Amino acid sequence: MLPGIGVFGTGPVVKVLVPILRESGFKIEAVWSRTVQDAQEAAKDLAIPFSTNKIDDVLLRKDVDLIFVLCPPNLHAQISVKALGIGKHIVCDKPAGLSQADALKMVRAGQYYPTLISLINHPFRFLPAFIHMKKALKENYLGSPITLIDIRIQSGCLFSDSDIFDWKCDDTMGGGALNLIGSHVVDLITYLLGKKAVRVHGLVRTFTKNTESINGIRNISAPDFCTFQMELENGVLVTATINSHTVGSTFQQEVMVCSSTGHLVVRGGDLFGRKNKGNEEVIYLDVEDLQCPVPNSILPKTFVKGLCKMVAALREAFLPVNEKAGWVKEPVCSAANFEDGLYVQAVLSAVRQSSQSRQWVKVMVMTEQPDKNELLSAVVRRTAISIS
Amino acid sequence: MLPGIGVFGTGPVVKVLVPILRESGFKIEAVWSRTVQDAQEAAKDLAIPFSTNKIDDVLLRKDVDLIFVLCPPNLHAQISVKALGIGKHIVCDKPAGLSQADALKMVRAGQYYPTLISLINHPFRFLPAFIHMKKALKENYLGSPITLIDIRIQSGCLFSDSDIFDWKCDDTMGGGALNLIGSHVVDLITYLLGKKAVRVHGLVRTFTKNTESINGIRNISAPDFCTFQMELENGVLVTATINSHTVGSTFQQEVMVCSSTGHLVVRGGDLFGRKNKGNEEVIYLDVEDLQCPVPNSILPKTFVKGLCKMVAALREAFLPVNEKAGWVKEPVCSAANFEDGLYVQAVLSAVRQSSQSRQWVKVMVMTEQPDKNELLSAVVRRTAISIS
Repeated sequence: MLPGIGVFGTGPVVKVLVPILRESGFKIEAVWSRTVQDAQEAAKDLAIPFSTNKIDDVLLRKDVDLIFVLCPPNLHAQISVKALGIGKHIVCDKPAGLSQADALKMVRAGQYYPTLISLINHPFRFLPAFIHMKKALKENYLGSPITLIDIRIQSGCLFSDSDIFDWKCDDTMGGGALNLIGSHVVDLITYLLGKKAVRVHGLVRTFTKNTESINGIRNISAPDFCTFQMELENGVLVTATINSHTVGSTFQQEVMVCSSTGHLVVRGGDLFGRKNKGNEEVIYLDVEDLQCPVPNSILPKTFVKGLCKMVAALREAFLPVNEKAGWVKEPVCSAANFEDGLYVQAVLSAVRQSSQSRQWVKVMVMTEQPDKNELLSAVVRRTAISIS
Repeated sequence: MLPGIGVFGTGPVVKVLVPILRESGFKIEAVWSRTVQDAQEAAKDLAIPFSTNKIDDVLLRKDVDLIFVLCPPNLHAQISVKALGIGKHIVCDKPAGLSQADALKMVRAGQYYPTLISLINHPFRFLPAFIHMKKALKENYLGSPITLIDIRIQSGCLFSDSDIFDWKCDDTMGGGALNLIGSHVVDLITYLLGKKAVRVHGLVRTFTKNTESINGIRNISAPDFCTFQMELENGVLVTATINSHTVGSTFQQEVMVCSSTGHLVVRGGDLFGRKNKGNEEVIYLDVEDLQCPVPNSILPKTFVKGLCKMVAALREAFLPVNEKAGWVKEPVCSAANFEDGLYVQAVLSAVRQSSQSRQWVKVMVMTEQPDKNELLSAVVRRTAISIS
């Protein structure tokens, strides 16, 4: 039995997700946005029966048992924690909240309600090319230990279609290439290798501070470029370059896992490999058409495909259980959970810190909430930096 | 009138260069190698009339007026300085010598004999794709200031064909991806933008320490991977990743120059561009066949093509002047000179230092020879590091 769904947010991901959910048989019962008008418009566009700007009006609905938190990051923790308390399953957008403190709140809530699903939206874990890559790594396709993972992502501008200044233009509100794309990269490494970063070096930059429509008092502070290196606990080196600052670029991704004797590489949605001095061979070509009718979107095709597969997995988790909102674990056991979300925040935070200190920074996963004074001074420090 | 040529070294570059030189009308009069046997073999293979293991026997020949220094880096400075003193033109392999101290000796000698040609072998400066890229940048193709240059090079193993342990396996002897490929990257930026790096961050690694044939007492210490970032004096950020540690990889290069409104990118020997939110367009396709009969070689095609063009430029420099070894400047004015070589060494040295200190390092171009004690302690330090 599939749960009814409540959606927080009305951005591009929501517009893509809702038809995908419907195709899998889910019913979308309610949509929330910060303003009534925006919520009403989205409800009309997407044919959702109920809209509101009050968080509780979605969370308390009896016909809603699964919540998608796809609103700005400053509300992730508040909504997720409350929803779990009310007994609703959660899929929260990446990265979890604005900071480790946010993510830690979510982790604690998730641990407190282990019978509820609590996932982070990292669709690349469900992309067939990466599933095949993980399988090939497990079967020792490379023949010798992994030495290096080299990732390069190019993307178009990460702001809204409307070109209006919103949270995605703002570093302190969780916008930018590091949060929105880098989080997927960090999580992908966890998924593929099951290994964490010990220390990182990063360089985070905002090259484009104004656009034709954003050129007034407020400048864009969200970074549109980052390059970072991670040393994993098993000695593997990861280097990633994410460039989203060149207007009109199409999305391109290449994830290359190297050993001394071969490599595996995902380009777009396809997987290639080379071993024992041989030529590169095709291991998996993503020729399968998307089953779900997805509107034209600025979202990368690989992301949308991963999303489809993730929704399909959620269907498999809920469908076999007759009890309302009951579920089985296996179909979603490879998804990112809130602990993964906390770790991603820890790495992103270390990368930002490294970019400022110009040094390598050790990754420290938060285990206790900082006291309020510390928190305040951190906010002041960060604001001061973003003003300078 | 074309000068007679003396060649130091017998490696893969020499085997490619000699036929190219002949095709342009140059006569190769003498070849030197460290051992008589190796010199004799090369002379026989390449049909060079004279071979020797004595440096002076080449430098003092009356029929030799242009010297190609393509032997191990520890001899670059000694041979180049002596050759200039005897009145011979020099093209020296990159990077110039083993260190800034070597390169500085060469700079001083070059300054002392300004009527002689003294160049560093950086053939990418002569590759049509990069010449067109430089032209497009000058004509403001991008429409807005350059923000970022993103370079990625993948190459096969950088050791000799023979798989015998030699200087290319040894970090302290000048081998490895940073010296042999990174030097071209650093120089290319100077060529394209005319701007120098202020500070750098680098991560230099040796992933493959043994091969099937090199697995005895001596391990490979030359780095087979590096990623580095450079901040240029005009604020442009350069990030480069060079990976040569995966056996059997083919050479691939991508050099992308970005602005907020477009990009120019050289892939292999071709140039593409995108501006004003348009699609990527072809600006230059390298369809021209190499005129010169080049033997099958492990060297990248773009490198060989650049070499052909550089030799053609040398021909243009010498041919119009009837006087023995007389030349005109214009055809070779865009080549890398010894000052460029010194700067490249300064950057490489800063990258190595950054990789050890895990911090950003300021690029300091040497202007005076370090005194012997300093030099000795630096050697001891470096040896200690490479032993550890």
